[in-house]
Amino acid sequence: MATKKLILNAVLLSSCCLPLFAQEALNFKVLNQSPVVNADSTATFIISAPAATKVAISGLTAEPLAMNRDADGKWVLTTPKLAPNLYTYSIDIDGVRTVDPSNVYTARDISSLSNILIMPGGNADLYAVRDVPHGSVSKVWYNSPSLDMSRRMTVYTPAGYEDSKEKKYPVLYLLHGMGGDEDAWNELGRASVILDNLIAEGKVEPMIVVMPNGNAEKAAAPGYTGEGMYIPDGSFSKAQAGKFENSFNDIVNYVDSHYRTIADKDHRAIAGLSMGGGHSWRISLSNPDEFGYVGLFSAAVRWNGTGGIDETEDLIVPLKRQFSNPPSLYWIGIGKDDFLYNLNEDYRKLLDKNSIPYEYHESAGGHTWSNWRDYLTIFLPRLFKGK
Amino acid sequence: MATKKLILNAVLLSSCCLPLFAQEALNFKVLNQSPVVNADSTATFIISAPAATKVAISGLTAEPLAMNRDADGKWVLTTPKLAPNLYTYSIDIDGVRTVDPSNVYTARDISSLSNILIMPGGNADLYAVRDVPHGSVSKVWYNSPSLDMSRRMTVYTPAGYEDSKEKKYPVLYLLHGMGGDEDAWNELGRASVILDNLIAEGKVEPMIVVMPNGNAEKAAAPGYTGEGMYIPDGSFSKAQAGKFENSFNDIVNYVDSHYRTIADKDHRAIAGLSMGGGHSWRISLSNPDEFGYVGLFSAAVRWNGTGGIDETEDLIVPLKRQFSNPPSLYWIGIGKDDFLYNLNEDYRKLLDKNSIPYEYHESAGGHTWSNWRDYLTIFLPRLFKGK
Repeated sequence: MATKKLILNAVLLSSCCLPLFAQEALNFKVLNQSPVVNADSTATFIISAPAATKVAISGLTAEPLAMNRDADGKWVLTTPKLAPNLYTYSIDIDGVRTVDPSNVYTARDISSLSNILIMPGGNADLYAVRDVPHGSVSKVWYNSPSLDMSRRMTVYTPAGYEDSKEKKYPVLYLLHGMGGDEDAWNELGRASVILDNLIAEGKVEPMIVVMPNGNAEKAAAPGYTGEGMYIPDGSFSKAQAGKFENSFNDIVNYVDSHYRTIADKDHRAIAGLSMGGGHSWRISLSNPDEFGYVGLFSAAVRWNGTGGIDETEDLIVPLKRQFSNPPSLYWIGIGKDDFLYNLNEDYRKLLDKNSIPYEYHESAGGHTWSNWRDYLTIFLPRLFKGK
Repeated sequence: MATKKLILNAVLLSSCCLPLFAQEALNFKVLNQSPVVNADSTATFIISAPAATKVAISGLTAEPLAMNRDADGKWVLTTPKLAPNLYTYSIDIDGVRTVDPSNVYTARDISSLSNILIMPGGNADLYAVRDVPHGSVSKVWYNSPSLDMSRRMTVYTPAGYEDSKEKKYPVLYLLHGMGGDEDAWNELGRASVILDNLIAEGKVEPMIVVMPNGNAEKAAAPGYTGEGMYIPDGSFSKAQAGKFENSFNDIVNYVDSHYRTIADKDHRAIAGLSMGGGHSWRISLSNPDEFGYVGLFSAAVRWNGTGGIDETEDLIVPLKRQFSNPPSLYWIGIGKDDFLYNLNEDYRKLLDKNSIPYEYHESAGGHTWSNWRDYLTIFLPRLFKGK
């Protein structure tokens, strides 16, 4: 039997060795090997744009980098040294913002696509896929009775989850900002890659990470609903204010009933960026017995409409209630140049005045994915390890 | 308690209503509402390319469509009537092939990105996300002892799968072509969307669909392995010939041990396109008791190296063995203009001569995703319904 199979396979080999052939609108030919990351932390780009008069790359440096036309008519550029990071960049060809024709790695944010380039080193090595055990990433639909809607979310289960029928895991709920959706933390935030790498290094507890859609008026990211491929504009109507937070228990209930979770406060975390930081802030405030770890990344904490904190008893009372049995970690991170810096400063003063404990991480930079990825790598190792 | 929560939420609303704000390399502004699908089955495109001298759209029609510059300096075009379908198109701006800056819906194939446009009607309505119950789509890593590798695959579980702990499902293994990977059938093939829609219509049995990576030398699609974001070139080395097929039981074993499958021949199907059709052909041939349904889409069935079938006893013997207890369905589909048409014609003659039963679907067109999506919609309703 074994011999027979071997013969069979040997004879059948030839259908494997088809010549390359063209398919519909397909391109087997590599345009340019570009970008190339060089050993000295620069990157070299080549773009064929024979008729262009001006080509530049945006997103790598503070100002766009102008490319130069070489003798063959190609546009080339070797960048200055770039700090280790994951960069999202685009190409400007005579005033048209587009993606790099030689780079198929893109991420969508709101209504635009950008290319991805990873300059290795430091934290950036956590953003690159490595040869480590990988968790699963699933797009899952859950029923939200509060919103009377079936809704899409991204769920990361760590390597090994599928191999057991018994082992239970803690859960992190990870919330996006106003321009995002259930794809954002995994695409631009590289959440599953960061988790895989930090778990493999033994620095982070294996956990389930749930990334829902924070826009209560949409079932899913653009292109994944019956609305079809509408153009996302990132705007949220006032009518939905509070709706997502009030429906949040639908998500927790779904997760606790469909995944092997440790369903208690000590094994449940919530964190988010910007609007999702505001969501995390309010959801943890409204549900003081549910979340033992809270992360506020560039968070839109309660806003008085003009840039400060609206400090009244109806804020102080629930805060004191939340901290009567405090979370194991209440973590605030923000960049010095963030437009929400003053708001967060006001909020910290309020916490200080009321003797409410928290940890504070102040970084350089502003309201950026670069900061949010970085905050995630700092926040994750702190989870589910007690006080 | 309920009252208190209500008050809390009302007071906390204001942080929801942030003005729009800029983020890193983000664009909240919609460039152009483009493309717009018109009621008369045309589509209108608007592209801002102020310095361009020639702009054209490829992929919608046999020849590229030249756009026209309007009075405002924008490039505009209303297409001729387009037949209902899912189109992948690109924009040529002065000789640079790029994606449409106004359309964030793209799919990668091999080394290029294209935009997606759906012209509704007919089968194309099966390719659009609708308000129906949605299955889950997961990127899962399985261990392949035969290849000594952990490998990535896409798994679709139908709506309702997550809500039961008991119900078991049949499985379709769906294999990509030489230029593809584990993302191809779901992105360009729209497999999960087609499944959701046909299951909701009651035409297709709820099933698990497993879409593995058929390139035995790669663990995963470009960008998802430790090799990083290499540029895919679609080429397969001869060294891997037969390896994927010989490792296929690793996939079946993983699926049967990790999902609620009905693990028998009557509830297991295999189908693929082009090279994946060749894989399906050989795997079902080598494992005659495992697959009750076989789909060969533009399939690279055994090739004699010059375009015909190599008809020898070591082909006929296993074929007769496979058909001694025949699959419930052995389905062959190909387009009249497909470069593998003659090969498939030779194969059908061989089947006829040996009185081996099959079903044959001949379509217009060639070696295209348009045909493969269409074949899938014809093949799926036939599965798991007996002879």
